[in-house]
Amino acid sequence: MTPDEHLVDAALRAWKTNVDRAETFFASLSDDQLQLEIAPGRNRLVYLLGHLVAVHDRMLPLLGAGERQHEQLDTPFLTSADREHAALPPAAELRKAFVDVNRTLWDAISKWTPAQWLSRHTAVSDEDFAKEPHRNRFSVLLSRTTHLASHQGQLILAKSRD
Amino acid sequence: MTPDEHLVDAALRAWKTNVDRAETFFASLSDDQLQLEIAPGRNRLVYLLGHLVAVHDRMLPLLGAGERQHEQLDTPFLTSADREHAALPPAAELRKAFVDVNRTLWDAISKWTPAQWLSRHTAVSDEDFAKEPHRNRFSVLLSRTTHLASHQGQLILAKSRD
Repeated sequence: MTPDEHLVDAALRAWKTNVDRAETFFASLSDDQLQLEIAPGRNRLVYLLGHLVAVHDRMLPLLGAGERQHEQLDTPFLTSADREHAALPPAAELRKAFVDVNRTLWDAISKWTPAQWLSRHTAVSDEDFAKEPHRNRFSVLLSRTTHLASHQGQLILAKSRD
Repeated sequence: MTPDEHLVDAALRAWKTNVDRAETFFASLSDDQLQLEIAPGRNRLVYLLGHLVAVHDRMLPLLGAGERQHEQLDTPFLTSADREHAALPPAAELRKAFVDVNRTLWDAISKWTPAQWLSRHTAVSDEDFAKEPHRNRFSVLLSRTTHLASHQGQLILAKSRD
């Protein structure tokens, strides 16, 4: 590997480690356990699961890695807070969607060259990107990794309470 | 910037963004508010502050970036759980230590070249590093960024409860 490939490899490993940990966590819980709250009156695990599916699904067009697969999850899990939206999809469906979207993403992004990572993400224009080259796909990968980690820190609060 | 410099820049920005957010958070709280728990019976904010100082302080020797400054925080904040250790340092001292250690780290690491980032961290031997080149300083930076983010996800639970 060249130096830039090593740097990309490190970030992909960090993403994958956190995704694998989250998938293992959600797979270990029953549907009833997914109703647990991370703290009294706060988000339920099932809400955070749906939220993570929606955010990772939005990475597909944002990175230019593919078409969205779960647009219907935006209303219950991005624009609504937990318990605002009456009917959530079944837990089994959300668990499967999480694994599916993570796999679809991985199949696309794990093959990218450093130059592909350093190209612009789709939410920035060519003009803005010329002035702000740090608004690249690599930054999206890093920020979505810390997003996932921040929720992971919350998930384990409910898990260990059980 | 060369491609590898852009990749390092993205990771440094992610680290700095998360550090700045945490410093702003802790600066916004009174000493009394630092006694809040992230959830009933869970870690207090003051414990997580000390824990983050200790973990960031340990990055100095781990990255080969400098000598430790706050070794005395390991017992109360790394080897002991919250409330196990009776006498914690004053909150003001911990807030200052957090800013200090983050600045010391930044002064060292923000100047490194990609080659320096890809060299081994000090917890891996030359032999092991030859077989596992991903055990480099850059991976430490990424994993400490997600560590910080995971606690950040917990900190805001107490903050918004207040």
